[in-house]
Amino acid sequence: MNTLGLVFMRFCAGIRTTLHLRSLRCSSGMSLSQIDEEVAKLLELKAQLGGDEGKHTFVLKTAKGTRDYNPKQMAIREKVFNIIINCFKRHGAETIDTPVFELKDTLTGKYGEDSKLIYDLKDQGGELLSLRYDLTVPFARYLAMNKITNIKRYHIAKVYRRDNPAMTRGRYREFYQCDFDIAGQFDAMIPDAECLKIVYEILSELDLGDFLIKVNDRRILDGMFAVCGVPDEKFRTICSTVDKLDKMAWEDVKKEMINEKGLSEDMADQIGEYVCMQGGMDLADCLLQDPKLSQSKQACAGLTDIKQLFSYLQILQVTDKVVFDLSLARGLDYYTGVIFEALLSQTVPAPVSTRVEQNMAAAGDEAGVSVGSVAGGGRYDGLVGMFDPKGRKVPCVGVSIGIERIFSIMEQKAEASLEKVRTTETQVLVASAQKNLLEERFKLISELWNAGIKAEFLYKKNPKLLNQLQQCEEKGIPLVAILGEQELKDGVVKLRNVTSREEVDVPRADLVDEIKKRTL
Amino acid sequence: MNTLGLVFMRFCAGIRTTLHLRSLRCSSGMSLSQIDEEVAKLLELKAQLGGDEGKHTFVLKTAKGTRDYNPKQMAIREKVFNIIINCFKRHGAETIDTPVFELKDTLTGKYGEDSKLIYDLKDQGGELLSLRYDLTVPFARYLAMNKITNIKRYHIAKVYRRDNPAMTRGRYREFYQCDFDIAGQFDAMIPDAECLKIVYEILSELDLGDFLIKVNDRRILDGMFAVCGVPDEKFRTICSTVDKLDKMAWEDVKKEMINEKGLSEDMADQIGEYVCMQGGMDLADCLLQDPKLSQSKQACAGLTDIKQLFSYLQILQVTDKVVFDLSLARGLDYYTGVIFEALLSQTVPAPVSTRVEQNMAAAGDEAGVSVGSVAGGGRYDGLVGMFDPKGRKVPCVGVSIGIERIFSIMEQKAEASLEKVRTTETQVLVASAQKNLLEERFKLISELWNAGIKAEFLYKKNPKLLNQLQQCEEKGIPLVAILGEQELKDGVVKLRNVTSREEVDVPRADLVDEIKKRTL
Repeated sequence: MNTLGLVFMRFCAGIRTTLHLRSLRCSSGMSLSQIDEEVAKLLELKAQLGGDEGKHTFVLKTAKGTRDYNPKQMAIREKVFNIIINCFKRHGAETIDTPVFELKDTLTGKYGEDSKLIYDLKDQGGELLSLRYDLTVPFARYLAMNKITNIKRYHIAKVYRRDNPAMTRGRYREFYQCDFDIAGQFDAMIPDAECLKIVYEILSELDLGDFLIKVNDRRILDGMFAVCGVPDEKFRTICSTVDKLDKMAWEDVKKEMINEKGLSEDMADQIGEYVCMQGGMDLADCLLQDPKLSQSKQACAGLTDIKQLFSYLQILQVTDKVVFDLSLARGLDYYTGVIFEALLSQTVPAPVSTRVEQNMAAAGDEAGVSVGSVAGGGRYDGLVGMFDPKGRKVPCVGVSIGIERIFSIMEQKAEASLEKVRTTETQVLVASAQKNLLEERFKLISELWNAGIKAEFLYKKNPKLLNQLQQCEEKGIPLVAILGEQELKDGVVKLRNVTSREEVDVPRADLVDEIKKRTL
Repeated sequence: MNTLGLVFMRFCAGIRTTLHLRSLRCSSGMSLSQIDEEVAKLLELKAQLGGDEGKHTFVLKTAKGTRDYNPKQMAIREKVFNIIINCFKRHGAETIDTPVFELKDTLTGKYGEDSKLIYDLKDQGGELLSLRYDLTVPFARYLAMNKITNIKRYHIAKVYRRDNPAMTRGRYREFYQCDFDIAGQFDAMIPDAECLKIVYEILSELDLGDFLIKVNDRRILDGMFAVCGVPDEKFRTICSTVDKLDKMAWEDVKKEMINEKGLSEDMADQIGEYVCMQGGMDLADCLLQDPKLSQSKQACAGLTDIKQLFSYLQILQVTDKVVFDLSLARGLDYYTGVIFEALLSQTVPAPVSTRVEQNMAAAGDEAGVSVGSVAGGGRYDGLVGMFDPKGRKVPCVGVSIGIERIFSIMEQKAEASLEKVRTTETQVLVASAQKNLLEERFKLISELWNAGIKAEFLYKKNPKLLNQLQQCEEKGIPLVAILGEQELKDGVVKLRNVTSREEVDVPRADLVDEIKKRTL
């Protein structure tokens, strides 16, 4: 063993003791998540050591915060995507695609405090590039670049954030976003209402249990900050702090406002009075009468739009799941009007292997592990103008569905149900009952493929019939087409139903039709 | 204007003169492609300067060698993908997905001379990462990591190469690969034959004109190098040089072998005699009798397998497009057995806007712009073992369809035909004939969405009927559901066929069924 290996051994021994002590502390209710951190550090050290020891010491892992999808997970993912894409198409959207990386400058100045989470590419000569952080900024760049002032498009693709991953709760560094956006100059709140209707339709159809869509408006937040005495230049950073209310108690948010962001206690308390308010159209009405808030023109414009929005949502019959919530702030800088976020009420049952971590997280989160936000969006009327050479604005509103959390739930649901997830669509397995029939199998399967039948065979010269039948059971293939000397002589194929074990001789010429009929 | 701006102005003035001189030279037949290079340099300089001048001087472009897909291009892309995915599913494949980046170590030592084209991510603390260069290495990593010894999977995803882009010929730095691979210990040439059948099916169904699939075997190449006196350690680098025969004349390849790779002229000449050979099963038979080549056990094993492969291809009825070609080498290091590559015979008609560049390229390429290779693959029995801690091998064979070149052709075909490409699937537009009916439109469209009908409406309070009908014409929406005071009173909706302009009153309760019936 080389020196690095020895260092590693000593390091491990040290950590083992630490782990032992920690676990004792944990059983008395102390933090287990620190152990996860230590383990992660250890694995990274192991990775670094492994890389130096030659060809067979590769670290077999995916990059931190990322994962592979196996065929079963892909089958579930496809199902989720289909529901979402169908909804987007039902609402008349086209689709576009943009590259996975953008010029670094394109992303600069769009994400506020989150900009530190952007992945940069190494400077290998040429342009400076970054991986996309969301699909909204590339969309705005696309509109400005192609001078498009009117489009309804969806875009489903992966985005990248160097965030702290929490994979059991569906938080990854590489993850899918499913975005639907409407760009164009239209009458107030009509496309905004459609976006909320879309979230409602998708979350209902995915059947993930109860959900709630919170709605607010950046102009109401800004107006509220103004009347509470917050200086203009602190609006965005205070907005980021308010945004933490879904994860932090008000007392901690207040502390951050005072200690880190420099508000007076009085300002913070005034904000505190507003951000605990929740309601519907009535609350908007009521706040329009609020002696303080109504002094802000911005706030009034936002409140009037919220009222209009709720009136459309009533016609769309979705108000049972929508709430006007003054604590909703959203992290990103580019929102200018209505903002919204959808949350599932359901807690996620953790897989057994990770239940310890989950329980700890639950303890930290007060009660039950909420998967939190599964969709979010809002109006960003200024973003396209940031890209246009003449600053021409294209008003936009859109929503982004966060598929990973939804996918975590769907996966766990599939695991809990006993139904087997098929990962192929194969209709028939071409089998032989005797030896030396490989060429005949090749000939038959080729006929089937050419006729559009989904067919497989075993890649063996002389497979046993039993093995061929087992393959069908394992993969859920419903039919077997069996060839033997007798069948070849008679010009037939023995077609066997895998579940019922019934067999019939089918004339070769009728086989394709018979398979199609049985696997509709 | 700041200093950088002035530098830019002076630089431009200089280039303008250069361009002027160059264009004179061009009209007398000199290189135009140098101008393209200068223009590219200028644009990059402009980009760098622009970044410093504030918010509205963004360079509105995608990263070099990448592009957006607009809705029309996406509609075509979807069509191509569907054909390919259907074929993969017809052959019983599951699908997986892997992250867009891998640990840098995972990609190291897999691509030979092409490794310099890998995109690295910036070291922002933590692991060193690279963008995937193909889907094959991540697949091998996935198999080793999950101890999978038997799988048939497809994977369609983007890969990244810092190559010299030639976008009009479909060569990009970000591009899709559509991979189908069979992993497992099977009888010789059975899965290999299926891979070739798949290429044959896909290229036939895409209807891109005539094509040719070249087949060879790495063991034949290595045996040939051995009997020609090439030292073992030069096999892979000489292989890379032979691989250039599709773009370079033999004389130039020979020069590279002698001057850059250090072969003797005699060795090169001996190789030259073999690499001009093309044929079928007969050629393999003939070479098995070749007094020199038959002395290599490796070559004989390869030739025997080629014979076996052709016997299966005959049963699969695809030999009309398959040729055994000793010049086929493939660039990548990891192939160990059969290799193949599919080429379209068709030349691509260039879009008018880029015809100048195309003509230049054509002049360089002797005659017509060939899109070249559209699919390639082979057997790589050692790759998974490079990842397995114990070096356990999993034999694999697979094929990769290069979608961008195919897509370029399909796009040009769509442009040439006058048929309009629809980018949405909207069945009906909900319209109003009078003012103040927004709420009624909202109500009706909500009913339609809830019934699964694909419907749109204009985001205006009081749109003109003419504008609403125009929208249908533009987007190819086949039906309009028109609401007016009278229709509301009568409990009907006026359903209009956009093409024929026929209108009928449909009772509200029957509307969904009527729309479904008409848009099946």
